[in-house]
Amino acid sequence: MTGWIAVAGLGPGDDALVTPEVATALDQATDVIGYIPYVARVAPRPGLTLHPSDNRVELDRAHHALDLAAAGRRVVIVSSGDPGVFAMASALFEAVEAAGAEPDIRILPGITAMLAAAARAGAPLGHDFCAINLSDNLKPFALVEHRLRHAARGDFAMAFYNPRSRSRPEGFARVLEILREECEPERLLIFARAVSTPDEALSVVTLAEARPDMADMRTVVLVGNAATRRVGRWVYTPRSAGRA
Amino acid sequence: MTGWIAVAGLGPGDDALVTPEVATALDQATDVIGYIPYVARVAPRPGLTLHPSDNRVELDRAHHALDLAAAGRRVVIVSSGDPGVFAMASALFEAVEAAGAEPDIRILPGITAMLAAAARAGAPLGHDFCAINLSDNLKPFALVEHRLRHAARGDFAMAFYNPRSRSRPEGFARVLEILREECEPERLLIFARAVSTPDEALSVVTLAEARPDMADMRTVVLVGNAATRRVGRWVYTPRSAGRA
Repeated sequence: MTGWIAVAGLGPGDDALVTPEVATALDQATDVIGYIPYVARVAPRPGLTLHPSDNRVELDRAHHALDLAAAGRRVVIVSSGDPGVFAMASALFEAVEAAGAEPDIRILPGITAMLAAAARAGAPLGHDFCAINLSDNLKPFALVEHRLRHAARGDFAMAFYNPRSRSRPEGFARVLEILREECEPERLLIFARAVSTPDEALSVVTLAEARPDMADMRTVVLVGNAATRRVGRWVYTPRSAGRA
Repeated sequence: MTGWIAVAGLGPGDDALVTPEVATALDQATDVIGYIPYVARVAPRPGLTLHPSDNRVELDRAHHALDLAAAGRRVVIVSSGDPGVFAMASALFEAVEAAGAEPDIRILPGITAMLAAAARAGAPLGHDFCAINLSDNLKPFALVEHRLRHAARGDFAMAFYNPRSRSRPEGFARVLEILREECEPERLLIFARAVSTPDEALSVVTLAEARPDMADMRTVVLVGNAATRRVGRWVYTPRSAGRA
């Protein structure tokens, strides 16, 4: 048996947002590796070994996958959303580089959280936009600030991943302060929590109304550009833009 | 019969990348509206009317959908990729605003081209990134340049949609010049054409090697950040970042 690794995006939560490509890979797998709540989304069956692991052990997980594939196993590493957006694909290639391995790898894209959130809200990312991981686990907050200011001055719409955790509640408060320095108070923000799951909650507020406690680690925060506006219950960014 | 509109993302081309949610909406539809090559991806069946239309008539299409839904039809507007990323969702909300209508609308996310392209290349968007539409149909090139410089100075990875068309071949040449002013010559670029279709072609080059004719309107161009590197045939952006 020839081993392989597929890094698969499970989408934001609803099985109706899992691609057939990912479903097929899971059907063929002998082993599924990933963060506990993502592995819990995979149905157990005979012949399939589930390897759930805790958060922040991404590299261990990647090396485990390489070992299993080298032994001929068919391994799916599951990520929420898309595996290439703040998820397991980069960690796997870091491990490949460190190990000097050349396994059979496929990256299987998924519906990343910002696209699911944007769809629920309307079309807030309908013009140029940035995706920024606000977690400072792997980068200094100074870099977060640097990118935020460039994103705001470029009038990009923005999507923030991992906005807030219990271990660093102050970071997102600082993000809102920076946005208030760069953008007008009427700027629209969308707090989209656990989209497509039973816990889904969506709120649209202005920058003036936004509070740090509106976000947690299951929230994606979308920020419109200067032209983003409401129509009825929807928020959208027009396709045309004039100012530079 | 109560009419509705779903704006659905068909993904980059392969049916294995169409979500079950979108497949279900297409099964329920009475009418499918969209750009000719996207409507051509929907199988004809009794009871389903296909309404293919030419490029650059997005607002006409949106008003047509509103009229059909008001008459009780179940309308799917199809986009390639994700409907909220440089596609039909924003055009629909512009039409809703202009018409003062309040139809039943759902936006159904899809695998957008940059995620499919990134997956084929490895994980080039594995850290903070921007998506920029290089078409200057609806915005001045000065705004494209403004955003490019901010994206480069913020050390974002980038994804460029609509990089080049026959009607404006010079724009992408200017984009490469701006990147050369802002980034080092070793910066990695990925030209990803028609990913997941029979015409798929992927090439990885340095900024020094990049030429305008490497892109056409079926190409998504990905640009790494300063830390993006190769491992074997793959390109990835590490999760850690130090500099600000």
